[in-house]
Amino acid sequence: MSTVTSINPQTAKDETAIRAVIEAVNQAHHDKDATAIAAAYASDAVVYDLAPPLSRQGIDVQAKKAWFETWEGPVERESRDFEVTLNGDFAFCRGYLRLGGTPKTAGRRISFWMRATVCLRRHQGGWQIVHEHTSVPFYMDGSLRPAFDLQP
Amino acid sequence: MSTVTSINPQTAKDETAIRAVIEAVNQAHHDKDATAIAAAYASDAVVYDLAPPLSRQGIDVQAKKAWFETWEGPVERESRDFEVTLNGDFAFCRGYLRLGGTPKTAGRRISFWMRATVCLRRHQGGWQIVHEHTSVPFYMDGSLRPAFDLQP
Repeated sequence: MSTVTSINPQTAKDETAIRAVIEAVNQAHHDKDATAIAAAYASDAVVYDLAPPLSRQGIDVQAKKAWFETWEGPVERESRDFEVTLNGDFAFCRGYLRLGGTPKTAGRRISFWMRATVCLRRHQGGWQIVHEHTSVPFYMDGSLRPAFDLQP
Repeated sequence: MSTVTSINPQTAKDETAIRAVIEAVNQAHHDKDATAIAAAYASDAVVYDLAPPLSRQGIDVQAKKAWFETWEGPVERESRDFEVTLNGDFAFCRGYLRLGGTPKTAGRRISFWMRATVCLRRHQGGWQIVHEHTSVPFYMDGSLRPAFDLQP
């Protein structure tokens, strides 16, 4: 195993930089800044999102702007228990993301946790998301409803 | 970027070995062999599954056996469009998995595609799954129903 731990100063720096990419995406949700979100992703990043289709390529800034318009006020996105596995010029993280806010159609505040897997590669001295997979499990009790009530 | 392509013979060998791990899990579903499934995963693998909870650790062989009992005949699991990104002793794959068969409660055949992200590490001369994330997106049209009708 050459996966390194945070004892190495370069590794600690990389891990900090990777966590900063995720926090920047969270902040961009709060700011409803679609361009700042897109900047964190490779243009050919493969994104498995909560909503269909099965897969998207990169971040569609116009679609993201339109999505932000469906929310009253800021969109909350909070990371928890993210673990970073670093290997040279490649890294993967997994953890939980809470999404919250007030969708205009709902007229009330919602908040739920999803699972997130984020793969990154070193790019121009920083880190760039090349793959992201977010999801909510669903109950197999016949209801098939998304499990919005789970807590990490 | 030190992510290598398949020109290197060792890399080609690794990629073949990684794909074989995924195919072995597919075959183990057909055979309803819970022990063979567990053998592909690290005991501390973090698994984000279709059903709650948010996260599981490793494969619970007894739970998997009980789950197989809920199906008439074999469980079909088919891979499509898997891309392998290899970096030294670490790899990640993403693609689609079709799950099919006849749940006893349904009394009819079902089949649907999910997205899959699989992270592996080199282990005792082979490859072992350390993280797996499978999901089905859901429709945000008010129904919140899982999008079982999507095709890769």
